Amino acid sequence: MFVLGIDPGLSTCGFGVVEQISGSGTQRTRIEAVSLGVIRTDPAEPQAVRLATQMHELRSLISEFQPSVVAVERVFFQANVRTAIGVAQVAGLAMALGAAAGVEVVEYTPTQVKQAVAGWGGADKEQMKRMVGELLALPGPPEPADAADAAAVALCHLSQAPWRGAATHARARVLLPASDAATPPP
Amino acid sequence: MFVLGIDPGLSTCGFGVVEQISGSGTQRTRIEAVSLGVIRTDPAEPQAVRLATQMHELRSLISEFQPSVVAVERVFFQANVRTAIGVAQVAGLAMALGAAAGVEVVEYTPTQVKQAVAGWGGADKEQMKRMVGELLALPGPPEPADAADAAAVALCHLSQAPWRGAATHARARVLLPASDAATPPP
Repeated sequence: MFVLGIDPGLSTCGFGVVEQISGSGTQRTRIEAVSLGVIRTDPAEPQAVRLATQMHELRSLISEFQPSVVAVERVFFQANVRTAIGVAQVAGLAMALGAAAGVEVVEYTPTQVKQAVAGWGGADKEQMKRMVGELLALPGPPEPADAADAAAVALCHLSQAPWRGAATHARARVLLPASDAATPPP
Repeated sequence: MFVLGIDPGLSTCGFGVVEQISGSGTQRTRIEAVSLGVIRTDPAEPQAVRLATQMHELRSLISEFQPSVVAVERVFFQANVRTAIGVAQVAGLAMALGAAAGVEVVEYTPTQVKQAVAGWGGADKEQMKRMVGELLALPGPPEPADAADAAAVALCHLSQAPWRGAATHARARVLLPASDAATPPP
């Protein structure tokens, strides 16, 4: 199954399509990166045009990959209010487009994502990038950071989903090799 | 020309399609209500489904009326943050759909709308409803309030648009009969 993770933003919206491939015989269930990237819009354009661009690209992603789940990082409003409105609006587009396509839509808080992927809620950007790179067996930490963040949201969903079954590891470490499971990230 | 005014909200999104009909000969330019109403969503549904409903209905309105302008009330964040996120998201849907359809999208603050329609920025809900009813020559104040608010946003746009021409009245009172122009609303 494909999970489309979204790190919403008006200037830069990260996306990460990851696939869980069920193990059979001696093979472990594994997770692969299918497509990671960002949708950028030009700050010189009117906000409505930038939102239309995000809407178009998000719709294309859903149409191309037909994910089973759209997982969106939940919006908070501690930060800059103007930025937060754009973040909320792009999150809303992703949620509306997902639901309109008949896809399950879920939200995770930044803390849930960090806990699931790095094993603790205080992980910083660099730790998250490194963990995403390791969990997806990429040659290195994915760039840009927003793509890594989006992949992390998708990985968070896979770690939380109830169907992952009894054979996998404890919640926060389901995605880690067993030898690393007790080691906090450096 | 049609103007589609939007008073965004997740539970209740007001819309008001108004038409400016240019005068000729002895006829004054006048403004008529074409369609006023609200799009409601069920609070028991998941947020993504509610956003998809709003998206679908807003797209239908734009497709049906083909407005020249989508005028949206600008979102602020003083109030309840959870509500504000839904408001921002529905505003974002309206803006994205408008721009995607090639329609001009504009935003007005609540104060701009009140000033344009009631003549002062401190007008209350009842005054606004009454003024909208008068300006659109309706039999009474439109209900529900969100539909009236949306029509007010559209009327605000018509009062501000530079093309309204030199023959019309001063900005805040362009929509009022001359005899009422100097009288504050009761």
